[in-house]
Amino acid sequence: MIITSLNNDKVKYYSKLMTSKKERDQEGLYVVEGEHLVYEALKENVVSELIISNNKYDLFTFDNKVYVTDDIMKKICDTVTPQGIIALCKQKQLKELKRYDRILLLDNIQDPGNLGTIIRSCVAFNFDGIVMGLNTVDVYNPKVVRSTQGAIFKVDLIKANLVDYIDYLKSMGVSIFGTSLDGTVLSNIKSQEKMAFIMGNEGNGVSIDLLSITDQNVLIEISEKSESLNVAVASSIIMYNFRKYLE
Amino acid sequence: MIITSLNNDKVKYYSKLMTSKKERDQEGLYVVEGEHLVYEALKENVVSELIISNNKYDLFTFDNKVYVTDDIMKKICDTVTPQGIIALCKQKQLKELKRYDRILLLDNIQDPGNLGTIIRSCVAFNFDGIVMGLNTVDVYNPKVVRSTQGAIFKVDLIKANLVDYIDYLKSMGVSIFGTSLDGTVLSNIKSQEKMAFIMGNEGNGVSIDLLSITDQNVLIEISEKSESLNVAVASSIIMYNFRKYLE
Repeated sequence: MIITSLNNDKVKYYSKLMTSKKERDQEGLYVVEGEHLVYEALKENVVSELIISNNKYDLFTFDNKVYVTDDIMKKICDTVTPQGIIALCKQKQLKELKRYDRILLLDNIQDPGNLGTIIRSCVAFNFDGIVMGLNTVDVYNPKVVRSTQGAIFKVDLIKANLVDYIDYLKSMGVSIFGTSLDGTVLSNIKSQEKMAFIMGNEGNGVSIDLLSITDQNVLIEISEKSESLNVAVASSIIMYNFRKYLE
Repeated sequence: MIITSLNNDKVKYYSKLMTSKKERDQEGLYVVEGEHLVYEALKENVVSELIISNNKYDLFTFDNKVYVTDDIMKKICDTVTPQGIIALCKQKQLKELKRYDRILLLDNIQDPGNLGTIIRSCVAFNFDGIVMGLNTVDVYNPKVVRSTQGAIFKVDLIKANLVDYIDYLKSMGVSIFGTSLDGTVLSNIKSQEKMAFIMGNEGNGVSIDLLSITDQNVLIEISEKSESLNVAVASSIIMYNFRKYLE
């Protein structure tokens, strides 16, 4: 199939998947851009449609290929100089995680780059999954997807009301750690079998509602010259510190 | 002084400082945006001019204030909804660091957000300074400045040819650590009195030239499911691990 008109309905559909969370959720799809991410998506078997403007990507074998012009690709894409290949991928909605030894809970994270980087580190440090509070930025936002560098296909994600979810985790014996300026310094926190860490909003940190129901709070030791760490950095240091199965 | 015309020469000058590295370096200045950063800059005594479009910022006492219209502020600013205050700040060019116990060397870091986050963590973990290779993104780029969250005023920075600088550091007894996939895992690296770590480009890592002159290489332990970490995350984990004077 070849599309040549910018006004084709499919072009409008792709653009909408790129820009609208509502459209993405309705269709259960999201868009990934560029050779590396599309290749990873194909390996993970999550692609439903391949859209190509650069013939060199004919090297990818796939049933449902759509060809478009460079102009159309530019219109669809979020990047200034698109590589000429995008894929529509199926969203993965989990009800349960496979294990509950190491969990990250995200409370109102707003920056797409931060969320993407957190997902990348979560996979790197073998955490069992991420529970995203209802107010966290959409994980299928193209900027989030891009900054995961492919980890989006490997991470286990749940979206939930965090207060309820913390109750559930506690019922399974998971210790809940908030992150807060009056917490215990990270190097004094003892490793336990089941741990969950709550990371908060870029400007305001973890909400008081959540801090009031944690078992303990953590603070990463920083200089008095410094106000705070970037939230993706703080999450990654905590996850590295409590990484699983890694030397 | 009040400026009302978009064509005023000063307006063009401010815009150029915002967008052009050449102009910034020629003038020895850079621009910071928004209440929080301007406030920090004033405290650190690095401001040469304050530009205001929102009267509420009259609360800041400063000799060299320029008032502009909202339209002019929008034209100058890098952000979509400017807060109504920017400051021209003096660049800090260091020849020497105060101490050489903990140094970060940056080889061809390209993403402004990554560089800003690295600077923020460097101040947080009491590193003595950052040496930026000649090919690293301009530290006075507005996006870098913004993501330092004020740490730009507190960090000691040097710009240098890294091969030469590594020679210099070695002559002062500093051990040089590269970061590389065939390095020793981080938790097996012993702390030493003087350590410098080289962090590499987002796509390609540390260049082979530099890896060939290190004393030892480090690898952060990550899952086999994962290809790599974000470079700001990797830098921060290493700096946390070898932080100074922090419990």
